[in-house]
Amino acid sequence: MEKKWTQLWLAYRPCRESENGPVVRYTALEGFDLAHPVVKNAWREWRRGIGGMLGITPKLTERETLQKEGARGGLWIRRNEDGLILGGYRIHADAAGTVCLEAGEETGLLYGVFYLLRCVAMQRPLTELSICCNPDNLLRMTNHWDNMDGSIERGYSGRSFFFEKNRVIVNGRTRDFARLAASVGINGVVINNVNVKDEATWLITQKHLGALAKMAEIFAGYGIRLFLSLNYAAPMELGGLDSADPLSEEVRSWWAERFRIVFSAIPKLGGFLVKADSEGRPGPFTYGRTQADGANLLADLVQPYGAVILWRCFVYNCTQDWRDYKTDRARAGYDNFIGTDGAYHENVILQIKNGPMDFQIREPVSPLFGGLRRTNQMLEVQIAQEYTGQQIDLCYLIPLFQEVLSFQTYCAKQQDTVADIVSGRTFGEKDEKERAARPRWGMAAVCNTGNEENWTGNDLAAANFYGFGRLAFDTSLSAEEIAKEWASLTFSNDPGTRDAVVALLMGSRDTYEKYTSPLGIGWMVTPSTHYGPSVDGYEYSRWGTYHRADHLGVGVDRTDVGTGFVRQYHEPNASRYNRLEQCPQELLLFFHHVPYSYVLPSGKTLIQHIYDSHFEGVREVERMIEVWESLREKLPSKPYERVRERFARQLENAREWRDQVNSYFYRKSGIADEKGRPVYGALGKETGNEISVQ
Amino acid sequence: MEKKWTQLWLAYRPCRESENGPVVRYTALEGFDLAHPVVKNAWREWRRGIGGMLGITPKLTERETLQKEGARGGLWIRRNEDGLILGGYRIHADAAGTVCLEAGEETGLLYGVFYLLRCVAMQRPLTELSICCNPDNLLRMTNHWDNMDGSIERGYSGRSFFFEKNRVIVNGRTRDFARLAASVGINGVVINNVNVKDEATWLITQKHLGALAKMAEIFAGYGIRLFLSLNYAAPMELGGLDSADPLSEEVRSWWAERFRIVFSAIPKLGGFLVKADSEGRPGPFTYGRTQADGANLLADLVQPYGAVILWRCFVYNCTQDWRDYKTDRARAGYDNFIGTDGAYHENVILQIKNGPMDFQIREPVSPLFGGLRRTNQMLEVQIAQEYTGQQIDLCYLIPLFQEVLSFQTYCAKQQDTVADIVSGRTFGEKDEKERAARPRWGMAAVCNTGNEENWTGNDLAAANFYGFGRLAFDTSLSAEEIAKEWASLTFSNDPGTRDAVVALLMGSRDTYEKYTSPLGIGWMVTPSTHYGPSVDGYEYSRWGTYHRADHLGVGVDRTDVGTGFVRQYHEPNASRYNRLEQCPQELLLFFHHVPYSYVLPSGKTLIQHIYDSHFEGVREVERMIEVWESLREKLPSKPYERVRERFARQLENAREWRDQVNSYFYRKSGIADEKGRPVYGALGKETGNEISVQ
Repeated sequence: MEKKWTQLWLAYRPCRESENGPVVRYTALEGFDLAHPVVKNAWREWRRGIGGMLGITPKLTERETLQKEGARGGLWIRRNEDGLILGGYRIHADAAGTVCLEAGEETGLLYGVFYLLRCVAMQRPLTELSICCNPDNLLRMTNHWDNMDGSIERGYSGRSFFFEKNRVIVNGRTRDFARLAASVGINGVVINNVNVKDEATWLITQKHLGALAKMAEIFAGYGIRLFLSLNYAAPMELGGLDSADPLSEEVRSWWAERFRIVFSAIPKLGGFLVKADSEGRPGPFTYGRTQADGANLLADLVQPYGAVILWRCFVYNCTQDWRDYKTDRARAGYDNFIGTDGAYHENVILQIKNGPMDFQIREPVSPLFGGLRRTNQMLEVQIAQEYTGQQIDLCYLIPLFQEVLSFQTYCAKQQDTVADIVSGRTFGEKDEKERAARPRWGMAAVCNTGNEENWTGNDLAAANFYGFGRLAFDTSLSAEEIAKEWASLTFSNDPGTRDAVVALLMGSRDTYEKYTSPLGIGWMVTPSTHYGPSVDGYEYSRWGTYHRADHLGVGVDRTDVGTGFVRQYHEPNASRYNRLEQCPQELLLFFHHVPYSYVLPSGKTLIQHIYDSHFEGVREVERMIEVWESLREKLPSKPYERVRERFARQLENAREWRDQVNSYFYRKSGIADEKGRPVYGALGKETGNEISVQ
Repeated sequence: MEKKWTQLWLAYRPCRESENGPVVRYTALEGFDLAHPVVKNAWREWRRGIGGMLGITPKLTERETLQKEGARGGLWIRRNEDGLILGGYRIHADAAGTVCLEAGEETGLLYGVFYLLRCVAMQRPLTELSICCNPDNLLRMTNHWDNMDGSIERGYSGRSFFFEKNRVIVNGRTRDFARLAASVGINGVVINNVNVKDEATWLITQKHLGALAKMAEIFAGYGIRLFLSLNYAAPMELGGLDSADPLSEEVRSWWAERFRIVFSAIPKLGGFLVKADSEGRPGPFTYGRTQADGANLLADLVQPYGAVILWRCFVYNCTQDWRDYKTDRARAGYDNFIGTDGAYHENVILQIKNGPMDFQIREPVSPLFGGLRRTNQMLEVQIAQEYTGQQIDLCYLIPLFQEVLSFQTYCAKQQDTVADIVSGRTFGEKDEKERAARPRWGMAAVCNTGNEENWTGNDLAAANFYGFGRLAFDTSLSAEEIAKEWASLTFSNDPGTRDAVVALLMGSRDTYEKYTSPLGIGWMVTPSTHYGPSVDGYEYSRWGTYHRADHLGVGVDRTDVGTGFVRQYHEPNASRYNRLEQCPQELLLFFHHVPYSYVLPSGKTLIQHIYDSHFEGVREVERMIEVWESLREKLPSKPYERVRERFARQLENAREWRDQVNSYFYRKSGIADEKGRPVYGALGKETGNEISVQ
């Protein structure tokens, strides 16, 4: 039976010829047990990959015979903990041509094997390798916002492959998902939506634990721990208690008993992700308790099982009055959490979105990074593209994530970037091995997968899944290197084709930014769906997401004479953001209310920049389509056509953004585009704005 | 078992004492058969009403004994066709005190009985009556947008009482609905949504015909004909044909056979309502045919069964490009139908919305009225309040309907109002009796009922149902008279209470208009839901509903230098609308794009008018609430509290409208409110608009 899903970057297409052939014929395994599920899966993957790519069936042999049997010495896999932490591996070849893969434990071996397979696929000679890879982040997670009815919140590639009709699904796709995730280093997966309601509340009951245990077992075979999102109100909804107060003894007992049941069914469960006191979800604030009270209760109770609590910091007032200019949603994360710094128990991890708002195409970095100094932290990013094109528009997000990771917070004299902080280097145990022994730091991505054949709707969107995993494992990789890997593995080693795809990916974020909301202001999207423009869509709403445009200017004053948000940053960031002339241009309207006539460093006025950027953005999409169409002969027809269809929709979307945003600001400012391009005023296309009074 | 619904204006509350007592004790029936279902129901209603109000059980007797038995002569019901048409009745008393009710046929009798019951309830002495009531409109219909799953499109008072879980419901509420409808003269009811999809397509099959026949029978007992909405694509969806082309012989045969089946099951079916080629519904345009081709096909085939086809004129391009300033949705009805005038067969009736757009709080009258001269026409209004407060905000619509009816189209030297046209007086058979013999003219209302206890969500919204029926029957009634009747019957004969309720109703439409969209521009509502403000919500959409505001002015130029819509009217209307100074102020922005600085006849600038009107509107809602609260002791607590809760929501809605609209125009125009009231600019409440540039 043909599978209903593709293998993405694990397609293992045949390589025409390869100098790696001799090396991969024989493998010796030393210090590892082939019966261990992870080792078994690694060996399976190796045989599958080499078989697919080189038409060779690798055989196991003894170390001593490697040299005799193979022309170049074969592959020697050995256990070696020196300098390697959990998940780390080292690869080097000796003069005789034996390629040695070392790992301190099984997942390191697995990752090493995937690394070697990538090299074979990209036709890099294994004998030339000399690398040591320890993961930068100890937790590398995907968060799936899948609902038990099979729908996916902010899902743009079909329905869930974890749930269907209120049941947990475990099938061949579960394993293939685990393979894909493990191949890029993912080691934790939250399978259900953070908004836990209805049937999902029952995931922690006997009803579903059997199926979940099976899934956890499959995941474990790929070094992945299963996590669940938790309903904070479960003691009430499942237990019939009157409250979910974290300081109530009754509530504590209820959770204790519940966790006993859950962990005896799924000993390998990694823990729970909790969205509390957010967007209508219940939480400790309901009972006048702190976020720490709430998180610690659960953390203490899962501690005996070696599990952790991932506690989201996405807490803000989502019933704001738009007339209220004092409240600033950007401030909320910091204001709600900074006072609890140090109050969390050791197995609580705060999960913090990259920006202070919500996954916009451009935001400053959340000031909680660098603000919190005594709390375990994880960076949450989103590859589902809720606000960044929804897997219709191409938007390769790895450059954005890299910017976030390399952002210098000035919270310490050195090692003060977001990458340093979330890896635990800044505030975690100083000793890397100690830190790795109890992983409390890392990165999570709200995931973009669904049950469509190609997993991610737009075939090119798979680069974000791939890239997130690779980057989370090795934050020193560049977005371009990652794109190259992915394009080679997915499409072709042909440099022309690969580089064209890489160029499309690399330019896509800037392009998307150009034709959508300008200069860091964000939003301007259609309410609810979040696709397509609606400049005023959120301007008079309760969500705290305003642009404050009037006939003279646009932008939110978050300086120290405005909402004061800038003060949440360390110096010199605070001052840099505070001063109009020093503020990075791409964040100008995030921090300042600026007149349309203000002259940017480029010499353009703000309004002209808005016009130019939107016309440019659309032109770039047109060019992207030309590039894609030039690849028609080079690519398999199915993904080619799928992506082409997406590009057509992207172009339509980009034009709509351009025309709505430009027309909106033209009508509001009355300042015409210097270049006289089509902008739609009150009386139609660029009429010079005469008023028809007879 | 207590009923789960109220009796509205048929509550028949006890009257303390009454001089009508003697009159109603005995009734003589002459020329009518008590076994006739309508007569039987009329007699039942009479006994129920008199029993409830006066504690008397009326008895049937002979005409000759009336004088002997009763002190005042009793009620003499007799058949008399002289001067009475279908549904008409005459009431007068002789010197001896006998009250005589004359009717030409059974429904006239029924309506006469309801009239008498109203008089009793309002404590008007029956012996003083001397009236002759022939209905002005021959068809007086409600259109229910009920879906078979039980939901109601644009329904704001619960779920359907006609359908549930894809089945037709026939129960006690069916009869009570028929009683309520008949009591105000309704004689036709379309029970299903004009958007016919899914299960509703199957209403014309054996699956549902049995239940529908039962419903039709109940309706017929109250002089009401059942109608159905039809899916124009049924030959394809049910019949499996390749097309629904009205000129295809195959399609014709399919419909012929289908109607044979339907009418043999429900001989009393009145016909079908069709929404074709509109908002995604299929229609003749799909096959390059005219609307007349489409309507005539069906009309010819239902003709043998004495049925009619109601064909909606709500045809426009709902995928308009907002950048297209040439296309004007207001023109669409006229443009699509005027060319087919005279092409419709005699049992086709075009059903035309009151305005050229879609049930806004203020629109000009559709130019199809007065445009079409050789086509049967019906006026469609909407009491469901989709755009006029959704049965939360009080908006008594009878004044609006009256304005429409009294609008002079200048299509003829006399009898040229909309009331004249839709009654058939202008273009129908000159002889009233002939016209009445085959009713092809009238009024329809998209209805506001649902299965909530009080039928209409807001108890005061029932006045729109009551008022529509009364007005459709007698277009000479004033909105205020109708309100008085309704308030008396529903709440109290106490003049203070009644007049307070009447005042609330009478002011409500102006109030609603003041706090929502100004001067006829309409829309500015939240997309999809249509409740609450979103000034730009439809500005960049595909629906053809724009306000074209920029920093200098607002409004749509529909003059002869604009879209030319004004030319669809006869003179002098066309010129009056065309000239800014002559255009009625309430329609100013519907016809003209006007600078904010333009001085209105009131001496105010346009922008100041917008501000003032919105502040006034909210103040008026506050005053309405005070009035309502002053009635607390005078009214039963349940409706009192229900309405109070609605008023609270209305106030919130009105404030939101005021602040969003005012802030929007302030931000756009930069012109401050002269009175310095709170308007929210770019930097918060009335800041004088300084820009924070450091």
